[in-house]
Amino acid sequence: MHKFKVTFYPDNKAVEVAKDATILSAAISCGVYIKSDCGGDGVCGRCKVILKKGKVLTQSTGIIDAQERKHNIYLACLTTVHSDLEVEVPVESRMEMHSGFQGIYSASEEVESREAVLSDKIFKHSPLATKLYLELPRPDLNDSLSDLDRLFRGIRKAQGLPVMQTGLSNIRQLGELLRDSDWKITVTLGKRNDTVEIVLVEPGDTSNKNFGFCFDIGTTTISGQLVDLNTKKISGTRVTYNKQASFGSDVITRIIYARQEEGMEKLHAAVTQTMNQIIKELTLEHSVDLNDVTCIVCTGNTTMIHLLLRVDPTYIRREPYVPTANFLPVLRASEAGIIINPRGLLSCVPGVSSYVGGDATSGVLSSGLYKERDLSILIDIGTNGEIALGNKDFLVACAASAGPAFEGSGVKCGMRASSGAIQKVKINPEDFSLELSTIADTRPTGICGSGYIDLIASLFTVGVMDRSGKIRIAEHKRIREGESGKEFVVVFKEDSGSGEDIVITEADIENIKRAKAAIYSASAVLIKHMDFKIKDVKKIFIAGGFGTSLDIDSAIKIGLLPDLERKRFFFIGNSALAGARQMLLSAEAARISEELARKITYFELSVDAGYMDEYMAALFFPHTDLDRFSSAEGRRS
Amino acid sequence: MHKFKVTFYPDNKAVEVAKDATILSAAISCGVYIKSDCGGDGVCGRCKVILKKGKVLTQSTGIIDAQERKHNIYLACLTTVHSDLEVEVPVESRMEMHSGFQGIYSASEEVESREAVLSDKIFKHSPLATKLYLELPRPDLNDSLSDLDRLFRGIRKAQGLPVMQTGLSNIRQLGELLRDSDWKITVTLGKRNDTVEIVLVEPGDTSNKNFGFCFDIGTTTISGQLVDLNTKKISGTRVTYNKQASFGSDVITRIIYARQEEGMEKLHAAVTQTMNQIIKELTLEHSVDLNDVTCIVCTGNTTMIHLLLRVDPTYIRREPYVPTANFLPVLRASEAGIIINPRGLLSCVPGVSSYVGGDATSGVLSSGLYKERDLSILIDIGTNGEIALGNKDFLVACAASAGPAFEGSGVKCGMRASSGAIQKVKINPEDFSLELSTIADTRPTGICGSGYIDLIASLFTVGVMDRSGKIRIAEHKRIREGESGKEFVVVFKEDSGSGEDIVITEADIENIKRAKAAIYSASAVLIKHMDFKIKDVKKIFIAGGFGTSLDIDSAIKIGLLPDLERKRFFFIGNSALAGARQMLLSAEAARISEELARKITYFELSVDAGYMDEYMAALFFPHTDLDRFSSAEGRRS
Repeated sequence: MHKFKVTFYPDNKAVEVAKDATILSAAISCGVYIKSDCGGDGVCGRCKVILKKGKVLTQSTGIIDAQERKHNIYLACLTTVHSDLEVEVPVESRMEMHSGFQGIYSASEEVESREAVLSDKIFKHSPLATKLYLELPRPDLNDSLSDLDRLFRGIRKAQGLPVMQTGLSNIRQLGELLRDSDWKITVTLGKRNDTVEIVLVEPGDTSNKNFGFCFDIGTTTISGQLVDLNTKKISGTRVTYNKQASFGSDVITRIIYARQEEGMEKLHAAVTQTMNQIIKELTLEHSVDLNDVTCIVCTGNTTMIHLLLRVDPTYIRREPYVPTANFLPVLRASEAGIIINPRGLLSCVPGVSSYVGGDATSGVLSSGLYKERDLSILIDIGTNGEIALGNKDFLVACAASAGPAFEGSGVKCGMRASSGAIQKVKINPEDFSLELSTIADTRPTGICGSGYIDLIASLFTVGVMDRSGKIRIAEHKRIREGESGKEFVVVFKEDSGSGEDIVITEADIENIKRAKAAIYSASAVLIKHMDFKIKDVKKIFIAGGFGTSLDIDSAIKIGLLPDLERKRFFFIGNSALAGARQMLLSAEAARISEELARKITYFELSVDAGYMDEYMAALFFPHTDLDRFSSAEGRRS
Repeated sequence: MHKFKVTFYPDNKAVEVAKDATILSAAISCGVYIKSDCGGDGVCGRCKVILKKGKVLTQSTGIIDAQERKHNIYLACLTTVHSDLEVEVPVESRMEMHSGFQGIYSASEEVESREAVLSDKIFKHSPLATKLYLELPRPDLNDSLSDLDRLFRGIRKAQGLPVMQTGLSNIRQLGELLRDSDWKITVTLGKRNDTVEIVLVEPGDTSNKNFGFCFDIGTTTISGQLVDLNTKKISGTRVTYNKQASFGSDVITRIIYARQEEGMEKLHAAVTQTMNQIIKELTLEHSVDLNDVTCIVCTGNTTMIHLLLRVDPTYIRREPYVPTANFLPVLRASEAGIIINPRGLLSCVPGVSSYVGGDATSGVLSSGLYKERDLSILIDIGTNGEIALGNKDFLVACAASAGPAFEGSGVKCGMRASSGAIQKVKINPEDFSLELSTIADTRPTGICGSGYIDLIASLFTVGVMDRSGKIRIAEHKRIREGESGKEFVVVFKEDSGSGEDIVITEADIENIKRAKAAIYSASAVLIKHMDFKIKDVKKIFIAGGFGTSLDIDSAIKIGLLPDLERKRFFFIGNSALAGARQMLLSAEAARISEELARKITYFELSVDAGYMDEYMAALFFPHTDLDRFSSAEGRRS
């Protein structure tokens, strides 16, 4: 098929595309981001471009008026390439990728995390969107089926699929597309609830290029993964802070902010910009054409999912705490402002309740908790921590509002688990010298969650810190009075990658203490509520964005995790993201996640009479009740 | 519920609506027509209005920029009424209802036609869209199902429906709507292929107001009917010329025109304007709120349906004559530019082939031809005439391009079958005085199809016209030389409602002759092709927009219909429209029409060796072969 070169200004980016490709898809192919809300249906009118040079064919539309036509203005989605082109993208049509929100952290280095004990292989491979190359028989007088029926017949012959639907925009282009491509086409088939949709029809064979994204949209951190839907291989992973963090550090402040003038709009823009940035970077890095990204699965807590879809989260925090939706229909990603193929699909992992969202469901899915014979617990350590208890017979879950400290936010030298982060720490009891390990073995620039856990455990062990979290020793070069009370210098600026001292302050310790108390007490209350004892729990799955490691001993030592045999613990990384990936790759996983979301019983901590006492008792290292932590060494009074 | 008054300028129309109604629905309620392509999803940005006075609540959207916001510009679909309002509709947002196409006939009087031998009662009542009033239980801590699941549960409890889907725009408004209406709501459920969609959620009980439209979109004439979907009663019918007629009188010229610059756009605008005019007039006349019109079913030939949906009809007339779609998914009416409820559904009766469309299918459905034991034929006399032959065992159909003469177009004093049209004529052989009957018994203003048939039969009987269609008598006050050859004065201007003589010219007779020859020869060839003789046909269903009557004797006398026993003939009026109405009212009818469209075999007349001979032989009154018309009295040589 003949190729034409399309050059976009002012970017001065060019791409070669086949005849009949739309200008919108050409732009997407070369990383020029044009607005499009309607998925290329030609109704939103956002994608106006100016044709500077060349020949196009356009569909007539009421959106372009006579004046605009005179000035060579076209809708990029309805206009196809018929020669080499020069196209200008006016400022109104450009999708803003970097917008100046205050307080945004710029960390976005790639960290491959060890994820999920269970492999994706356990579910049957049937991605949310599949591509199918078809060589349709040309019609003749003896086989005069209509174009659309011919397409349906071709698909049915190849795959035996039942119900099928497609949109008017596909039908409108079908006649010309089939003939121009000599009846050789690739269809993208998407699963939309119980029906199969023809999402896309493309000329030629593009079936070997089918990609998807899975996202874990956390309150503090957003993780995204580019997945090859044909090979099930992860092409790459990016983790970055959620730009929403500048509007409040927890879900409650975000819900309140959403009620302000333009609040919802700003929160929605922040999350989609964060996600689009990840999509842009990963596709560029792996040379994946955005047009070949056909679907996306998102998991996250209920508030995050509401904000992503611009659904009012108000009722999540009003009694009786009912969200607008836990189960969402499969939508078009463009409806949420996400830049993959304009007709690509967006599915959200179903949630359980207002405070236990799809991230809990996808964690339970990928950890395999729902198939365990023995009593097991999943502790997902995040800003809005989720704890699920159960086995193959029952599942119950609660939320623990831990705050963002374990994600390196709200602590002085905190950072995400990305290169330069101190992830392991050991303090020599003799001279307080430190053994450090940083992610990617670079010079340290800050401390991530697992680093804080190790550090606090060590400070406690060597006696720098007491059980209440106060720094006891006054006279040492590493210990000094800082702006917010005493602080311990972990790395002096000479050795630091940031050029500044890396410290932990008493305020930081207090933050971590509250976070670990929230997680531990929630776990303990949940276990007790179900009439079990802590020691009855046979498997403990620890999840969270801790990068490559989490020291279970340290976590027990500070009282974050219960003091049980070490072999019962499994650190599974970002299990929420792994579950979303399984849903992206398998309709079976999607079906099971629906069952799980219905099966998991939500337990509201605040109605439990003992919860506050448990929480208060956990505000010590490791705990007020030392008998619970008999194996934790290095106890000091 | 508290009501607020919304006044629209410059129309100066006002309406009272409930709090939380959108400005768009308020406008629709009082006949102010605002553009909206996306069905109120807030993505097309067509429905911008200026708030002059009053309090509203709006959803934030990227479509309204800061400048516009400052000038109180809102999207009517996303903005709800919270006080009395004054709203200005700027010219860009107004839907133009009367656009200046040349050559448009203004006839639009209502004619109730006698339709369909079979009553609508034979199909189970289950309209395309139904309304269901629900009083949902308020959520509490023991019943904390999400809003959307609560809605689904309520619907399932009431109706036991399986698959359900809904759009993001419904979800976005759900939380507030449910609470503001105290959980008392009406849902509109639409059948979209094999799934059920929640089309609309409205506050309060509106279930007693659910209306639909059925349309027969003919090449020359468009008929529309407003139907109460609860009672199955026809509220009213309107028939008017298709404004597309100014772009060519038959489907081929329209297809050619569609390839011109803006051609498709103009043809699409013409048909939707015609339909919207009918919708506007009927809903105003019967005091039906456009918001309560939830669905529409359209039938028509394949070209008309392609143009309605702005699907390229080019391939219909290119070998091997394959249309883009015969079976179309259920769409939103707004996608085709039709002004009912912005989220209302549009279904098209499935077609058979490029030249036998949904009108043939719906005619076969409503005539009951597909259930007959004996060989039967359906002859639908229109510009693109359809003929279907068969019984319960087989069905075959062909198209006869008759031209618009029988619809009163392309003939000098022709008019549609509407009030003032001469529909019956008898000429006194002694003095050529005429007995006339006009529709609605008014003074005659023109001649409709059945009038021409009677008139030509009479002219032939009394010897004014010979077998070739020439006027033979020279000396009579009614016979004179006109601009286009000889003409016969039917009504002198003193008695005419138009103030002009009403005449029939030799050119008119020639036109009718070609039209009747096309219909007759197509019927004869089809019967012969299937190895039957004309006399084997036991039932002849005659359909078409002839108003209240068609004289079978006259039709046989001119050779339009075969000369068979008179009791075998059934004049069934607009059977295509009746079939569309049955599909509107019954899912069972919709299912059967799908089966019929697959079952009917298309027969291409032009490939039959004998067709041209048959056609040439039929270019006489009644026919070259007089033995075929032995009962036709008043034969003259």
